[in-house]
Amino acid sequence: MSGNSFGTLFSVSSFGESHGPAIGCVIDGCPPGLPIAVEEIQAELDRRKPGTSRHVTQRREPDEVEILSGVFEGVTTGTPIALLIRNQDQRSRDYGNIAETFRPGHADYPYWQKYGVRDFRGGGRSSARETAVRVAAGAIARKWLLQRHGVVIRGYMAQLGPIEIPFVSWDEVGDNPFFAPDASIVSELESYMDELRKSGDSIGARINVVASGVPVGWGEPVYDRLDADIAHAMMGINAVKGVEIGAGFASIMQRGTEHGDEMTPEGFLSNNAGGVLGGISTGQDILVSMAIKPTSSIRLDRRSIDKQGSPVIVNTHGRHDPCVGIRATPIAEAMLALVLIDHALRHRAQCGDVATTTPRIAGLAPQGRQSVPSPRIR
Amino acid sequence: MSGNSFGTLFSVSSFGESHGPAIGCVIDGCPPGLPIAVEEIQAELDRRKPGTSRHVTQRREPDEVEILSGVFEGVTTGTPIALLIRNQDQRSRDYGNIAETFRPGHADYPYWQKYGVRDFRGGGRSSARETAVRVAAGAIARKWLLQRHGVVIRGYMAQLGPIEIPFVSWDEVGDNPFFAPDASIVSELESYMDELRKSGDSIGARINVVASGVPVGWGEPVYDRLDADIAHAMMGINAVKGVEIGAGFASIMQRGTEHGDEMTPEGFLSNNAGGVLGGISTGQDILVSMAIKPTSSIRLDRRSIDKQGSPVIVNTHGRHDPCVGIRATPIAEAMLALVLIDHALRHRAQCGDVATTTPRIAGLAPQGRQSVPSPRIR
Amino acid sequence: MSGNSFGTLFSVSSFGESHGPAIGCVIDGCPPGLPIAVEEIQAELDRRKPGTSRHVTQRREPDEVEILSGVFEGVTTGTPIALLIRNQDQRSRDYGNIAETFRPGHADYPYWQKYGVRDFRGGGRSSARETAVRVAAGAIARKWLLQRHGVVIRGYMAQLGPIEIPFVSWDEVGDNPFFAPDASIVSELESYMDELRKSGDSIGARINVVASGVPVGWGEPVYDRLDADIAHAMMGINAVKGVEIGAGFASIMQRGTEHGDEMTPEGFLSNNAGGVLGGISTGQDILVSMAIKPTSSIRLDRRSIDKQGSPVIVNTHGRHDPCVGIRATPIAEAMLALVLIDHALRHRAQCGDVATTTPRIAGLAPQGRQSVPSPRIR
Amino acid sequence: MSGNSFGTLFSVSSFGESHGPAIGCVIDGCPPGLPIAVEEIQAELDRRKPGTSRHVTQRREPDEVEILSGVFEGVTTGTPIALLIRNQDQRSRDYGNIAETFRPGHADYPYWQKYGVRDFRGGGRSSARETAVRVAAGAIARKWLLQRHGVVIRGYMAQLGPIEIPFVSWDEVGDNPFFAPDASIVSELESYMDELRKSGDSIGARINVVASGVPVGWGEPVYDRLDADIAHAMMGINAVKGVEIGAGFASIMQRGTEHGDEMTPEGFLSNNAGGVLGGISTGQDILVSMAIKPTSSIRLDRRSIDKQGSPVIVNTHGRHDPCVGIRATPIAEAMLALVLIDHALRHRAQCGDVATTTPRIAGLAPQGRQSVPSPRIR
Repeated sequence: MSGNSFGTLFSVSSFGESHGPAIGCVIDGCPPGLPIAVEEIQAELDRRKPGTSRHVTQRREPDEVEILSGVFEGVTTGTPIALLIRNQDQRSRDYGNIAETFRPGHADYPYWQKYGVRDFRGGGRSSARETAVRVAAGAIARKWLLQRHGVVIRGYMAQLGPIEIPFVSWDEVGDNPFFAPDASIVSELESYMDELRKSGDSIGARINVVASGVPVGWGEPVYDRLDADIAHAMMGINAVKGVEIGAGFASIMQRGTEHGDEMTPEGFLSNNAGGVLGGISTGQDILVSMAIKPTSSIRLDRRSIDKQGSPVIVNTHGRHDPCVGIRATPIAEAMLALVLIDHALRHRAQCGDVATTTPRIAGLAPQGRQSVPSPRIR
Repeated sequence: MSGNSFGTLFSVSSFGESHGPAIGCVIDGCPPGLPIAVEEIQAELDRRKPGTSRHVTQRREPDEVEILSGVFEGVTTGTPIALLIRNQDQRSRDYGNIAETFRPGHADYPYWQKYGVRDFRGGGRSSARETAVRVAAGAIARKWLLQRHGVVIRGYMAQLGPIEIPFVSWDEVGDNPFFAPDASIVSELESYMDELRKSGDSIGARINVVASGVPVGWGEPVYDRLDADIAHAMMGINAVKGVEIGAGFASIMQRGTEHGDEMTPEGFLSNNAGGVLGGISTGQDILVSMAIKPTSSIRLDRRSIDKQGSPVIVNTHGRHDPCVGIRATPIAEAMLALVLIDHALRHRAQCGDVATTTPRIAGLAPQGRQSVPSPRIR
Repeated sequence: MSGNSFGTLFSVSSFGESHGPAIGCVIDGCPPGLPIAVEEIQAELDRRKPGTSRHVTQRREPDEVEILSGVFEGVTTGTPIALLIRNQDQRSRDYGNIAETFRPGHADYPYWQKYGVRDFRGGGRSSARETAVRVAAGAIARKWLLQRHGVVIRGYMAQLGPIEIPFVSWDEVGDNPFFAPDASIVSELESYMDELRKSGDSIGARINVVASGVPVGWGEPVYDRLDADIAHAMMGINAVKGVEIGAGFASIMQRGTEHGDEMTPEGFLSNNAGGVLGGISTGQDILVSMAIKPTSSIRLDRRSIDKQGSPVIVNTHGRHDPCVGIRATPIAEAMLALVLIDHALRHRAQCGDVATTTPRIAGLAPQGRQSVPSPRIR
Repeated sequence: MSGNSFGTLFSVSSFGESHGPAIGCVIDGCPPGLPIAVEEIQAELDRRKPGTSRHVTQRREPDEVEILSGVFEGVTTGTPIALLIRNQDQRSRDYGNIAETFRPGHADYPYWQKYGVRDFRGGGRSSARETAVRVAAGAIARKWLLQRHGVVIRGYMAQLGPIEIPFVSWDEVGDNPFFAPDASIVSELESYMDELRKSGDSIGARINVVASGVPVGWGEPVYDRLDADIAHAMMGINAVKGVEIGAGFASIMQRGTEHGDEMTPEGFLSNNAGGVLGGISTGQDILVSMAIKPTSSIRLDRRSIDKQGSPVIVNTHGRHDPCVGIRATPIAEAMLALVLIDHALRHRAQCGDVATTTPRIAGLAPQGRQSVPSPRIR
């Protein structure tokens, strides 16, 4: 087990390299009887697909998914669901010089030293291409979470480099290639990206994800807290360098009287906790925010070394996203779905008989921006 | 498995409640032949112990650890190491009113809804008392990491509420109750805490942890990245709300030319990556930073509900840390040690035969503050 | 993780050596709200306890268990349950010569070569003393299985060396130190054992275990079949060399028309399957049989080698069971309970929503011997 | 996780139904740098392939395997290896009546009750077709075991129904469709099978597997003993009802003086232990024997029930092996390989630094029949 499986009860075992024959996964533990169509998975994949705007990589991959097992007559059978996506657009020549040198900020160097062998074409296993698999698996998790528990998972870009993006409405997120929740800022984002692309450089971003409708009680108390597993999931996405739950780093300067979310019979009065207390969901929205670093494959000259340890100048002319954060929203949503379904099943396993007479309360704030504590989004 | 075990190959299974008879753990997978004395574990426990200054909880717990198994004639045998710490100072009366109400910002409410039963005394399992177990287990991990690989793990407080603490020297960290790396700021911290304590409120903090000497190659590429497992470990510490690796959230505004750490035959020229690329250690210092929220148990009045869902006013007069961040440094160090030993063993399992002729390079910056990118600390 | 934990969702992490300070375990994942008293655990331990008749080891261990966590006001809380048993009767001098030599048929030699260090006193970790922990953990599993699902787990000795023991009644099992289901054969067993003990030799045995009331549907289809996990559990008991489910090795000579258990609306007409088909429980009794080898520590001279590889003559004069099978029945019952509770929880996690209108049928044969196919016992 | 993954460090996640589009697996944790060609995997698959003689199912499946990832320029990269086998010969009409009824002795009934839905075509997930995946994955494990440690794994049929098959030579195993180690008995086996096939009935078998060259020290002491994991692996093969290690059930009647394998500087004098003591390999041959039940799908009339619980007569006219044992040898070899590579890696992880000066001894008996204790085969 080398860390290519995710989840304890709803587990995804992923495979595939950027320029190999295919990528895909085996999903084990999916509850039986869930109606799922290949089109539903495809729809999620299409949200993450490359080549859909000039701001992302121009690699042409249809990302067409095939269900190989585990679904019979339109419903899951409880046996493993295998998903297969054939790679189509492999221009290996783009990556010729990477074979002998190491891109700064890229996994090239540690991969080589770890394994002593690597498929360098397009980054091989370290490529963000693998994240298509997560989105596909996440589509099934989301379907179950919605159907069984009414859970809705949505994300958006909250910042692109220096540009903070105000939260206006969930409705605007799907209408632009940035997943920005404010249509009026899109032209500014486009100008910024056009200039960046011309410069040959790359930039970071912030992505926020929110899960609404999560019942109280999911998660575990100590090491596998719900927020700890979310942090694991998010930091396990390529290029993520930081993860916050609820108030996140703003908590440092908060006093207890400000941070601790008060409760009334009508619901919680704030959500600094981000929907998790003591590692267990509270019934409020789960609020997650993450930092995405700038792409390491850039056209500009960078100092590095080659396999012999000699100094070289590296620049990368393959097809790369100048901001990997632009396509990260569906990936982050998928990972959150995978964490939640896993904990939903873990909770049912141990606590399936529990019932208290204490009323269950939720957050009082309406869905959307208001439920996200302002210091975190700015 | 309800999330009370940590680690895949070097695994710690923890138990115990704040006011039960004892806390402790079973460590499985420790390499045999490691010399370990109970005093070495005790020394780490003493760093985290309550009651050592007026700024932390006044609960008097000697935290005396007993080794029950797995060590014979002073060395580990490869069989499970059980550690036991008896609780001594249980004043359950301090917690009487918690039984029927839920403290805002505390695990009380979701625990109750999840399990339908809970040991409310002192927070039961949700108490930070459990972290003593992590420190004890971490002491063994640290010993092995140092002896076998020369890895050194050190942490410090980087911010207390509004007060940023400059990094002056590792030597100053051990000389004050805050784990502050700057002796000259200690009196300011003390004044702040004295005032805070009088007010009955609590405050957050930032803790940084650094692992030096980690070889290139530890970690896994996809889900169980080294940084993902570190995020899981840190977010799994009570009160942590955010985790950063290397440049962390500062990456959002960085361009690729700034963020990507260039390499020369002499070493890496910067460490925005925080010692991890593609989920695998680079040979540079591992840099981790985390946000600790303010304690939820405070003396001031807060709105909440009781078990029947009726509105109540809650205030907590037990013995609590007004800033849980003050004692968090040894815990964060221990968790980092647990992640690292686990990945050291995982790496050896799969890649024990790998050898490349490529030279291994490290960071050029000297140990300590210089290796921590400034944007992350502020 | 070095194999000292058992179970996926109801997991037991065991520790302790024969002559160390204590043995015990951490149980994680127990459903909350289960009433459990220390006396219930103690009652199971007393069934396995050494020194209760002249036919077993004369080591005097009260095997007194302490609950350290996870139980509050008499019910489980859902947090880890730690159980502790202090060792009392450690006569290490009994084992002096074992330190430098390896007993034939014993774990001494491979332990030494694996770890390069070992606690040789009383066999250290390889001692059957560890099985007390399994019985203690199993007591909690049994309680839940009985209370929640009406599952009853019972075992008996079916053969002692050359003496086959007819199944007369469950009622007779508890009335003799052999767990023999036929009181009339006990004097023959006693004579056999007295003679054996005088000779300084040891003997094997067969143990059968039956679980009644297991609902249809527990288990997994492929690798973690219910019977595969049972085989793992039983072969994981010290000295077990063979495991059968249902007709077991008699299946080799059976035709399909004989082996395949026919079904009618009233129930299954036979139970060659032993209650498991395709890895999943059928609703019939789970039938397990196992072979226990003769004790390797015997008083008679045996050829062996010492640490330097030189030839030596070994004989063992410590306190040993001349037939470890005699005390094996409660251990086998406990292991079956641990497998079943784990699969009960795994089943609920994935299939908690499943309901079919197909009637559930059970075995037609009355409980007890009749449900055990005769070819298997002989 | 529903039990479709096998192994802790070298893990195989299997998928696929008998009549779905494909079967296959993801192998995670394979050491990098292992040369592996698709032809090597294919060669193992061809040994298990259906339709190769009149004594096995006549389903025509080429079982052609494709490597989708994890192998680059002929060597493993350390990233997941995905293997894909498309199903070719799906005559679903063969299985029409199975949809509404349950075959006696088959997984039909418990599957239905567990999942409430199932792919009934050809047994779906419960079909032995899944075992092709194990053979494919096992081919990689075998290659590594042989190349890295010189381990050789071989199996044979030891009994076909009433006919015991003497062990003559490994050389004869590959020359007949039964994997019989005695060419002179093959015509008797053929006659028996011809008659059986005509009768419409089925029969059981015994398969033995031997691993030679396993170093001392693989395995874990308590629950995950090497023999416990082997038992789990073997009982996890379709139709297996019993597993023995070494002397197996013959141990019941052995005395300690007979069973305990004496040691001399030249080697072990016998191998009743079957190469495992205290759960750890001894350096002798690993000896495993298993009972395979008769196929449950037979042409003869059997009483059963349908989905409504009404009585029905079932007979099965699809293409089935009248003795599934005939094709079981390569599967059992593969499973043993998977257990051994997993424990090889686990051992290296924890004990990679261990070295003792004690000489390592092996078995004195020559390879083959002589190393298999005769009482076990009978």
